Amino acid sequence: MKSFVVNGINDYQVVEQNVPSVSDEQVLVRVEYAGICGSDLHIIHGQNPFATYPRITGHEFVGTIEKIGENVKDLRVGTKVVVNPVISCGQCRPCKIGRSNVCTELQVIGVHTDGGFTQFQTVPASNIIALPDTINLRDATLIEPYSIAANVFNRLDASSDDTILIYGAGVIGLTIVQIANVLGIPSIIVDLLDEKLETAKQLGATYTINPKRENTEQRVMEITEGHGVPLIADAACIPALIPEIMRLAAPAGTVCLLGFSSEDSPLQQVEVIKKELTIVGSRLNNKMFPKVIDWMAQGKLDTEHLISHEFTLDTAPEAIELIETDPQKVRKALIKMH
Amino acid sequence: MKSFVVNGINDYQVVEQNVPSVSDEQVLVRVEYAGICGSDLHIIHGQNPFATYPRITGHEFVGTIEKIGENVKDLRVGTKVVVNPVISCGQCRPCKIGRSNVCTELQVIGVHTDGGFTQFQTVPASNIIALPDTINLRDATLIEPYSIAANVFNRLDASSDDTILIYGAGVIGLTIVQIANVLGIPSIIVDLLDEKLETAKQLGATYTINPKRENTEQRVMEITEGHGVPLIADAACIPALIPEIMRLAAPAGTVCLLGFSSEDSPLQQVEVIKKELTIVGSRLNNKMFPKVIDWMAQGKLDTEHLISHEFTLDTAPEAIELIETDPQKVRKALIKMH
Repeated sequence: MKSFVVNGINDYQVVEQNVPSVSDEQVLVRVEYAGICGSDLHIIHGQNPFATYPRITGHEFVGTIEKIGENVKDLRVGTKVVVNPVISCGQCRPCKIGRSNVCTELQVIGVHTDGGFTQFQTVPASNIIALPDTINLRDATLIEPYSIAANVFNRLDASSDDTILIYGAGVIGLTIVQIANVLGIPSIIVDLLDEKLETAKQLGATYTINPKRENTEQRVMEITEGHGVPLIADAACIPALIPEIMRLAAPAGTVCLLGFSSEDSPLQQVEVIKKELTIVGSRLNNKMFPKVIDWMAQGKLDTEHLISHEFTLDTAPEAIELIETDPQKVRKALIKMH
Repeated sequence: MKSFVVNGINDYQVVEQNVPSVSDEQVLVRVEYAGICGSDLHIIHGQNPFATYPRITGHEFVGTIEKIGENVKDLRVGTKVVVNPVISCGQCRPCKIGRSNVCTELQVIGVHTDGGFTQFQTVPASNIIALPDTINLRDATLIEPYSIAANVFNRLDASSDDTILIYGAGVIGLTIVQIANVLGIPSIIVDLLDEKLETAKQLGATYTINPKRENTEQRVMEITEGHGVPLIADAACIPALIPEIMRLAAPAGTVCLLGFSSEDSPLQQVEVIKKELTIVGSRLNNKMFPKVIDWMAQGKLDTEHLISHEFTLDTAPEAIELIETDPQKVRKALIKMH
């Protein structure tokens, strides 16, 4: 079989490997599609402190079950499946209080262990979720990205009476727009690129703001009649935006951060106290796959506007190069494995 | 009657005034005791953006009902009462979602309107809470400070399986220690002054740390066996502490901020995301008086170790001077009005 392997920083290639053997608690997945995420590029560039090398990257992947470990009872060969990349221990305090996505022993498939940029991969059976017949595998590759957005709404504890302000119309921002729509939450999205805002509009954003042409604060305050916004998701992840974000939050509002920056973000505590804000981090997903699968099966998620490119496994390095050199052209790029 | 009036920045005195007349929805309180809070000093120094002058300060006060407005039904002359200083509109979004302490029309008695450093004060009847006979008025002056701490636990959404780390052993830190005890939550408290830590210990703190002698991070990690702390309350309110606070938070932990600093606090988003932290502001109190009164009536709160000084209204300016010049000596200073 062939795999896309990152040997070390900025050193990657497609190589021939043996199909891995399945242990008792595992399943062997014949991978059909995998999506390329910004964090795969972070591993390639040595910017992910958790990744070790060599590593088969890819944490957004789907396929069919090829083989089943001896102790695996509920799954069958041939079933279409999606892989939840979050491996947790079930024993630590975060796991026990229902926050297994920040398990103290957390392992992420494609980061800490080998992932989906390959033709066959072994996965713990507990990370396998069977797909309903109505969902095709190509669309299902987006379940993991949608689960990131679903987790944002879970952390925001959002209700449909609220409005959400979204910074950044990349794939995460666009999935947040779509899930806002599913939940009946009006959305305002901010980005510097008109073409991305156009996609956001097509996917259901209520308002779009381009700070190159409009004053974001003024426009948001107009839209909200001076109240500010009860929900904010920062999918732009630029530390310098924090003061504006906090100013735009409504009293009793909630702000969800998604960025991994280790730079200092300038937080003015007076804004947090005065309005009694809640600031939440959101990482990966906390058991969000069933909800996303349900929405997708009901046809509530527009996958077609999100997928912009498809590559073969042999041309995966070209996909990486395209995203590096021309990120504005790419929304979600998929790799087809066979 | 006599009142302590702040005429403008750093300009205050005790003056003779007329007893105010009571409107239909108000109650006239014969004030017995008022507590002096750091925020009264902020108003004196012009550091509170909401205060206008001249202003009778004081938002921690108790007394007996002297007179009742025509439309007030449920209160009687002579009843012992405490005043909740939070006036909210009941109509705005924060009020409607049960967060009236950040009402968009918020007024705080003693800040936006005249407060309790006086012998008689009119108060909206809805801000008056009758006291049970078992609570004496002197102790009752601490209900408002305790309500600040109760609000912290409300915002932290704390459970008794957790441990709380408290920065600062001033009055707010000490009330947080006591309420942690009431809730069965072990506490670790950090302060630079040993005498304050000694008081914290007497009030039930489980562990004390003086960073002058010990490395806070090392000690907290020892106590928590390397896991970090699920609950943190920052009653020290020093922006430079933020990176340490975020490092010490356990995965899925919650940090409560209390400071009004408009300086930039250096927040590293990676800590917030990696551990999926929740950062909450806590302002004033959100309907916490009944709970605090209940605890006090049951004898669960040690008021005696909190009250360090008592002044008459005539000597109130001396109380202010003492707190200014020798803050370490003062825990809670009360003014007796008659």
